[in-house]
Amino acid sequence: MTDIKITSFTIRDLRFPTSLDSIGSDPMNLAGENALGYLQYHTDKGLIGTGFSFSNGQGNEVLCAGIRALAPRYIGRSLASIIADFGKTHRNLLSGQIRFMSPERGVMQLAANAVLNALWDLWAKVEGKPLWRLVADFTPEEFVKCIDFRYLTDAITPEEAIQMLKAQEADKKERLELALKNEAVPGYNTSIGWLGLSDEKVTENLQKALDEGFKHFKLKVGLGLEADRRRLGLVRKVAGPDAVIMTDVNQLWDVDEAIEYMPKLADFNLFFIEEPTSPDDILGHAKIRKALKPHGIGVATGEHVNNRVMFKQLLQAEALDALQLDALRLSGMNEILSVLLLAAKFGVPIVPHSGGAGMTELCSHISTIDFVVVSGKKSILEYTDHLHEAFVNPASMAPGSYHTSPTAPGYSTDVKEEYFDKFECPQGSFWKSPKGLEMLNDPWRGVLGEQTS
Amino acid sequence: MTDIKITSFTIRDLRFPTSLDSIGSDPMNLAGENALGYLQYHTDKGLIGTGFSFSNGQGNEVLCAGIRALAPRYIGRSLASIIADFGKTHRNLLSGQIRFMSPERGVMQLAANAVLNALWDLWAKVEGKPLWRLVADFTPEEFVKCIDFRYLTDAITPEEAIQMLKAQEADKKERLELALKNEAVPGYNTSIGWLGLSDEKVTENLQKALDEGFKHFKLKVGLGLEADRRRLGLVRKVAGPDAVIMTDVNQLWDVDEAIEYMPKLADFNLFFIEEPTSPDDILGHAKIRKALKPHGIGVATGEHVNNRVMFKQLLQAEALDALQLDALRLSGMNEILSVLLLAAKFGVPIVPHSGGAGMTELCSHISTIDFVVVSGKKSILEYTDHLHEAFVNPASMAPGSYHTSPTAPGYSTDVKEEYFDKFECPQGSFWKSPKGLEMLNDPWRGVLGEQTS
Repeated sequence: MTDIKITSFTIRDLRFPTSLDSIGSDPMNLAGENALGYLQYHTDKGLIGTGFSFSNGQGNEVLCAGIRALAPRYIGRSLASIIADFGKTHRNLLSGQIRFMSPERGVMQLAANAVLNALWDLWAKVEGKPLWRLVADFTPEEFVKCIDFRYLTDAITPEEAIQMLKAQEADKKERLELALKNEAVPGYNTSIGWLGLSDEKVTENLQKALDEGFKHFKLKVGLGLEADRRRLGLVRKVAGPDAVIMTDVNQLWDVDEAIEYMPKLADFNLFFIEEPTSPDDILGHAKIRKALKPHGIGVATGEHVNNRVMFKQLLQAEALDALQLDALRLSGMNEILSVLLLAAKFGVPIVPHSGGAGMTELCSHISTIDFVVVSGKKSILEYTDHLHEAFVNPASMAPGSYHTSPTAPGYSTDVKEEYFDKFECPQGSFWKSPKGLEMLNDPWRGVLGEQTS
Repeated sequence: MTDIKITSFTIRDLRFPTSLDSIGSDPMNLAGENALGYLQYHTDKGLIGTGFSFSNGQGNEVLCAGIRALAPRYIGRSLASIIADFGKTHRNLLSGQIRFMSPERGVMQLAANAVLNALWDLWAKVEGKPLWRLVADFTPEEFVKCIDFRYLTDAITPEEAIQMLKAQEADKKERLELALKNEAVPGYNTSIGWLGLSDEKVTENLQKALDEGFKHFKLKVGLGLEADRRRLGLVRKVAGPDAVIMTDVNQLWDVDEAIEYMPKLADFNLFFIEEPTSPDDILGHAKIRKALKPHGIGVATGEHVNNRVMFKQLLQAEALDALQLDALRLSGMNEILSVLLLAAKFGVPIVPHSGGAGMTELCSHISTIDFVVVSGKKSILEYTDHLHEAFVNPASMAPGSYHTSPTAPGYSTDVKEEYFDKFECPQGSFWKSPKGLEMLNDPWRGVLGEQTS
């Protein structure tokens, strides 16, 4: 069946106007849309491979242009020829004239991700399995063959990876059964804590999440000490002393600011501060982690960490208590598998970033793979309750706040057609409305404090 | 005069087919074009601010799309309002919904660079000065106000920067005079060493460069030990024992490969190996530098280092003997000024990357600024002899291999109109020719070893 041939592609610019509800608002960006650069590979057998990558709205057409630059590379190709040496396919996709545009960072990275997601989705659909199961059924050798180890061998070699995966095979069957019973991936809740929400709305969301069985919560901070303490006090009071509370400041601080600020919140008993500073600052994160350790506060980052080389160093520098890989930023399952191996090697749990449309859908696969095949440990997965309804195979929470490991064939990437009628940009009905046009025509949307004349 | 108002913009996709002459060929990319995303801001006073950023050809339309996403932000704005707090302008340009697309890395970084270059060019033209002179005439306070210090204060604060600049003012007048006499910026020659050139062509280019007075040369390596030693032997023999020879491998190796390979070339007495591994690998560069030091070989990188946070860490980790900032990658003169300060603070010389169309033009400004205002030391600047003729104010070498510090107002960014007739993509005559169309329609151009069916 892998002789299936890719014949053409379509790319669509899909933008959900989430900023209207303050969803995703943080101290660096008060108004973000959830937008997808959406790629479909059509085939000679009728199956469609779907992949997308994410942006926050403005400039999503640049992401689509990036996908358009890469997608033609597989037209006329059989799936078999693509996956025969998938690690090499990954390396070559990021090679050539595009290299000066940094295909391992930024737009071209996101674009490569959409392309690879579509290829993985197609493969899983061809095999009639959810993607996590396709990977779980790999031999260690097949798993490793999907990875380009370039730049990683000072931290992990293919041979070492195979040994690690073999060592996990002893109890793999038991973990697979837990996954099939939806007990693989505990969730935590971010919807309580968007920065733009009122205290009343935070309390309401929190109570709802508690009723649903959540025990882990995340709150945006960075509003200033008084407001942050008030909001944290509220959450701790409602959620109780045993709830795990995480904080997130979305890169607001310099290194020394983070070190000075966070101990003033230590009495709320916090698991970690997420993105305390620039995601590029490996040495800075290491310094912050060392300084906050005596205060019982950990450090997490990853949603803006561009590639495996950056994660490798964050681990080598002992900068992380939780590794928050982003399924829509790293280039495809190929690079994600390498980061899962790195995290397991260094003994750091993954807590994937999935606070945007489609992210939980993809991360349910990733966290299940990590549990069943790689680390063998359950890691918590972010859950936000918006926009799952737009997906053909939505992520969902099982009773007791566990994520359902996906059951439908593929990578859960397909979006329902009716959402394009409304939200495809610029021709969807919302974006042609006066409000939509006003949003599209504001070049400074989401930027604070720019004098614009 | 700074009440001049920006009224509209134009963006053009300009691609020089340099791959036809093997210009720019390296072990990771055998066929690169020199391409520009070219932005012009038109004003109510007739002056035009020109900025561009660079790519290697394929996907240059993505870069243009990135510029198109950002350029509208300054329409209707006065130059005065933009430069009043230029550091904040820089920060805000990289803010908002575009943040998920990594405006400090990759395509959006390159796009921001084009926008900022156009604003700086306009400012210098308004003042009737070459840009280096505009900056050289700043007070330390004016200089520092152009910089966003976010994420830098653990390495350098604005106050410290002002003190550093003040300390350099004692001999600034003498250095300014040297700049006006074209004795500020010694050049080195890269045109000898492209990977695709035959030994005969290397010898011919080298002899020509020696005749022109060059004493520094750079050669691509990574062809394998035998070929690398043959080519280095050739260069050392023709150039003589006193010539400074640098090597460049364009990210080919893993960390331990670089450590194993380079000592085998140590007998050729090499200044540095450039880009031994991934430009993101700060800890890797530090490890390589430590290992190569006993062999007398230094480490350099920078042309793919995306931003000031990465350079900050490369310096903090003592990973560099030369800092090769790229004028078309860092976001505008704003970020470049901050990197010059960092390099001076850590005592590492800059050796800007300028091996592509337009790069030497811009770097002549940067190296002059570094010498006159920041480090006070002469640093060598890369010189390749291709495509200067396309620029209205081309970079040029003075007798004895010194770069001429530019004299025309602006940032030397204007390209002659006739080159657009031929090389604008896709409508220029070259790109409509059969050869041009064949190049454009090959999605794998420059990629080695991909099975394409």
